[in-house]
Amino acid sequence: MISSSVSKRQLERFPIYLGYLKQIARQGEHYISSSTLAKALGLTEEKVRKDLQVVSRRQGKPHRGREISLLIKDLENFLGYLDAENAIIVGVGHLGEAFLNYQGFSKRGLNIVAGFDVDDKKVGYDINDKPIYHIDRLNDLVSQLNISIAILTCPAQVAQKMVDLLTRAGVKGIWNFAPIHLHASDDVVIENVDLSASLAILSYKLETKFKEVK
Amino acid sequence: MISSSVSKRQLERFPIYLGYLKQIARQGEHYISSSTLAKALGLTEEKVRKDLQVVSRRQGKPHRGREISLLIKDLENFLGYLDAENAIIVGVGHLGEAFLNYQGFSKRGLNIVAGFDVDDKKVGYDINDKPIYHIDRLNDLVSQLNISIAILTCPAQVAQKMVDLLTRAGVKGIWNFAPIHLHASDDVVIENVDLSASLAILSYKLETKFKEVK
Repeated sequence: MISSSVSKRQLERFPIYLGYLKQIARQGEHYISSSTLAKALGLTEEKVRKDLQVVSRRQGKPHRGREISLLIKDLENFLGYLDAENAIIVGVGHLGEAFLNYQGFSKRGLNIVAGFDVDDKKVGYDINDKPIYHIDRLNDLVSQLNISIAILTCPAQVAQKMVDLLTRAGVKGIWNFAPIHLHASDDVVIENVDLSASLAILSYKLETKFKEVK
Repeated sequence: MISSSVSKRQLERFPIYLGYLKQIARQGEHYISSSTLAKALGLTEEKVRKDLQVVSRRQGKPHRGREISLLIKDLENFLGYLDAENAIIVGVGHLGEAFLNYQGFSKRGLNIVAGFDVDDKKVGYDINDKPIYHIDRLNDLVSQLNISIAILTCPAQVAQKMVDLLTRAGVKGIWNFAPIHLHASDDVVIENVDLSASLAILSYKLETKFKEVK
């Protein structure tokens, strides 16, 4: 990994570059210039140049630009993949269940090994061969199962309590899907995915769009 | 709605204020100052002041700050809720199925009425009383069912094709969960939720954190 300061905004753009580059690589493209990449993604050329300087020391070739396969490799190296971290689902509602069934995260090194809930109708059963435990057993099982990451899919009202439990149990990272601001100690990293915020933004965009059209 | 220019960053913070204010309102708080709010959410006081000026013309009271219940009302009015828009799920995998089962979005005016897929094992069946149709019927059913929003939970490889189909069929907004950059005409609004990007950010945060600790 190249050490350099990187903003959260930049960090959010890297997977977008990656997705786009993989897409055009599949379509048979071999080289891309910063200006073409900028145009395709609706960014300024300057921004793209700066972003790519963070992830790659390679220079593009005049007239052809950068080799796509190498740029993909550099982006993947920079972003890194989780190092086969074990994860648990906290809150086995619809979203939690979807994650227990989904295989896709294991490609990024995230192995979901179990779920936790308080509901008697769920505790003691398996979903996709992954056991659902009662939340009371969290503290013991986090260390027994060597869990480093918790995916929070519980209701907002209990999310902070879960963060406190998970911190005490020793998880290192929390991927939070509960629509609430959470406090954690410095030992724990939190990444938020706020679906209701995203829906509010879609709603706002639609409304302003609609106003413009009228 | 108060007309004012608002940045995407601001827009993303409003639901966070809302979540936090509702939480402390439940805990019995009645007033909050910009500085307390800033401290609680890890923002600068200046940023909080500016944000709240966008959504509310009311002034806080000296020493007490703003009335929480009124601030909640202003934020909700500003963000708006979808006006009972009908939505469809495009791609009934695990995430699509979770959304068909989830009731929570209807509180924000998003009524999920049907799913679309190509898989014979899904087409013709119901999930949570919502029918799954073959994607071939998209064009007819979007107008018949009065659909304005599509939730894209299909694989990345077919997402752009789906956007083209949906645009032709006349949807106004697309909530995209496929990890890919999509092109759409100016008539269609897209809001992206990129889970693999979010996971990459969590992974990056964990790695840099881990390096600091060593």
